[in-house]
Amino acid sequence: MNNLVIRNATIVTPLGKHAKCGDEMSKLFTMANGAIAITEGKIAYCGSDATLPEKYLSVQYETIDAEGRVVLPGFVDSHTHLIFGGYRPDEFEWRLKGDSYMSIMERGGGIQSTVNATHEESSEALRDKAQWFIDRMVDMGVTTVEAKSGYGLDTQSEIKMLDVIDSLANDPEQKLRVVATFLGAHAVPKEYKGRTGEYVDLMIREMLPAVKGKAEFCDIFTEKNVFEIEDSRRFLKAARDAGFKLKLHADEIVTLGGAELAAELGAVSADHLLHVSDEGIKRMAESGTVATLLPLTAFALKEPFAPARKFIDAGAAVALATDLNPGSCFSGSIPLTIALACIYMNMTIEETITALTLNGAAALDLAAETGSLETGKSGDIVILEFNNYRMLPYYVGMNCVKTVVSKGRIVAQN
Amino acid sequence: MNNLVIRNATIVTPLGKHAKCGDEMSKLFTMANGAIAITEGKIAYCGSDATLPEKYLSVQYETIDAEGRVVLPGFVDSHTHLIFGGYRPDEFEWRLKGDSYMSIMERGGGIQSTVNATHEESSEALRDKAQWFIDRMVDMGVTTVEAKSGYGLDTQSEIKMLDVIDSLANDPEQKLRVVATFLGAHAVPKEYKGRTGEYVDLMIREMLPAVKGKAEFCDIFTEKNVFEIEDSRRFLKAARDAGFKLKLHADEIVTLGGAELAAELGAVSADHLLHVSDEGIKRMAESGTVATLLPLTAFALKEPFAPARKFIDAGAAVALATDLNPGSCFSGSIPLTIALACIYMNMTIEETITALTLNGAAALDLAAETGSLETGKSGDIVILEFNNYRMLPYYVGMNCVKTVVSKGRIVAQN
Repeated sequence: MNNLVIRNATIVTPLGKHAKCGDEMSKLFTMANGAIAITEGKIAYCGSDATLPEKYLSVQYETIDAEGRVVLPGFVDSHTHLIFGGYRPDEFEWRLKGDSYMSIMERGGGIQSTVNATHEESSEALRDKAQWFIDRMVDMGVTTVEAKSGYGLDTQSEIKMLDVIDSLANDPEQKLRVVATFLGAHAVPKEYKGRTGEYVDLMIREMLPAVKGKAEFCDIFTEKNVFEIEDSRRFLKAARDAGFKLKLHADEIVTLGGAELAAELGAVSADHLLHVSDEGIKRMAESGTVATLLPLTAFALKEPFAPARKFIDAGAAVALATDLNPGSCFSGSIPLTIALACIYMNMTIEETITALTLNGAAALDLAAETGSLETGKSGDIVILEFNNYRMLPYYVGMNCVKTVVSKGRIVAQN
Repeated sequence: MNNLVIRNATIVTPLGKHAKCGDEMSKLFTMANGAIAITEGKIAYCGSDATLPEKYLSVQYETIDAEGRVVLPGFVDSHTHLIFGGYRPDEFEWRLKGDSYMSIMERGGGIQSTVNATHEESSEALRDKAQWFIDRMVDMGVTTVEAKSGYGLDTQSEIKMLDVIDSLANDPEQKLRVVATFLGAHAVPKEYKGRTGEYVDLMIREMLPAVKGKAEFCDIFTEKNVFEIEDSRRFLKAARDAGFKLKLHADEIVTLGGAELAAELGAVSADHLLHVSDEGIKRMAESGTVATLLPLTAFALKEPFAPARKFIDAGAAVALATDLNPGSCFSGSIPLTIALACIYMNMTIEETITALTLNGAAALDLAAETGSLETGKSGDIVILEFNNYRMLPYYVGMNCVKTVVSKGRIVAQN
């Protein structure tokens, strides 16, 4: 029945149904000796243990004694490339040796190698592999994950990827919530080399109608020599007109104006943003577009981190996500994301918690449904090993999640 | 009986009974379709699966089918402060905010707070906490761990810590090998402020005889304004005369000559070495003193990493360890250690594997007993999830250890 009560909890949560911006990100509600009751997967009570209504003590409710441990909203990983064929460890090594991107491409590396491997792998194999990653994500407290297509780059293969995501999302045994994003605009496929506009035409004419209903978001890799601003604007407007919510890979490698475009089009999020302009930050703060920062990727590529402080100080909403993918960042580590945010991006742990919960949910337009511990929201909950949330960054790169609850069901016990 | 056979293994291991130096660190023996048989805790066969003697197929041997996965020697974490009272998350946060070391000390932070908490905690509590960390270390593939005293700073409390280490080491259910190091010279206790020499006298006169038999190694924090070179030399010579093997915390904060002293005294290892001089590197290479580098600490403190490449290129032996401790580095993450070594210290994955196995064992004078997969050595083995050891750094900060075997006994299954 997914009826569950957590007692003797140190409740720590942002509050609200919208992204927290700027200073608001650091304001967490905390309560010692708290209790949370979940009825049929939704939070029915969140408050003092002393005033927990009797009905939640009935045999219909499973009880967890948190023994004073911190209880947080489940983490939201709002940017992953969860579905992919093959692996690219050799390319990772070549890059560390200083080989150029071009030389790696020539040896069969780069995104094209994953596109080829994704074409070749069966849907079942792609699904099993993604589930393997999901199981590890859940152990780290993730209760909502976004998954992008984008290693198909033709209509049929993009649909294959989105169908895999759909089968994960709708598995009745699934441990977390899965949100699908169409990223046909991940790269210009080799067949369209030098004809980016024609590929954009194809996506608008053929792919968007074909994937409608299979993905809630459309995303695009807005970058110099990939999809530049005009192509991105044309594609995203068409996607918006077709009813998709919008995301952008923006200003990752050079300052191109992806952040400004995201704000202009009312995108739900713009992601990466390592090279965002000050004007882009200002526009995103004004538009309410969530800035989704992906520190694991910067760490793995030895790039400077995105300017989290500038975003927060400008009043923008920052979310953090892993960017799990087989190329630039083969990692889904929530503990390392927290460490990088607090140690290297100068985010406070309170801001980091908001970024991984409510603002992550907002980056998926799910802030009314999850991302905080409040009556009416989904019973998506993390119980830490410790009774102090400041242990999260201090326990550097290590997982201190003890128990994970997803829609009221216990899905991980470490 | 701790009889075990691992079949269908991709064997990856350094070879030998001594630390690998310089270029030798990158030479791993690899064999596909391999098998390893362990009889009564020791490796009795390591070679081709095709020629595995029949006797290892008897019912007296438990069999693991590795299904082609990589099989490595168990990792050796040769530098930890595993036993400690309390935690210091607030201090971690103050440091991130830029507060000075002095201001942190004034608010009750720093090593003294752990000394106080260690005095107050019962031996049982200290032991349970250390076991909790050990369980997590084992999940990451550690089969040998060093544990230091050093939060007692008086004879009785140092003995209390070493007795806790002893009870962990001699627990018949213990999952890994525990090596004890006496680190009474971790700091000058507040009662001896300004009288470092008198504390050194006390350690030599009272502590060394009292801890003899409880610790195999003596270690000292050789650092400006703590134990400088002359005090360190005097203490270490006395320890050596008393039959202890030597370790040094050397050149961590400033260039003081700890590396040179380690070489001069024939220390088994010198550790940290962020600010080692070129002369110190040369001397350590000549003396065969293992350079134990602790990248998690540099990462947590935002310090530059130790010059691993310089050591290796000079022909020295490099080991990697975690430095788990409640102050500068509350982390025991082997996956993050690997990522930092390969991405940020320019070590190859082959060198990194040697540093975490055979050279870690050598840093504990155990290279004849563990650290490689060879007949006669202890059955200390890690099986990865993957069939390619290059997945280790590529899977950034994530644990890909599937199964851990310690002295022929399966101690972790992820």
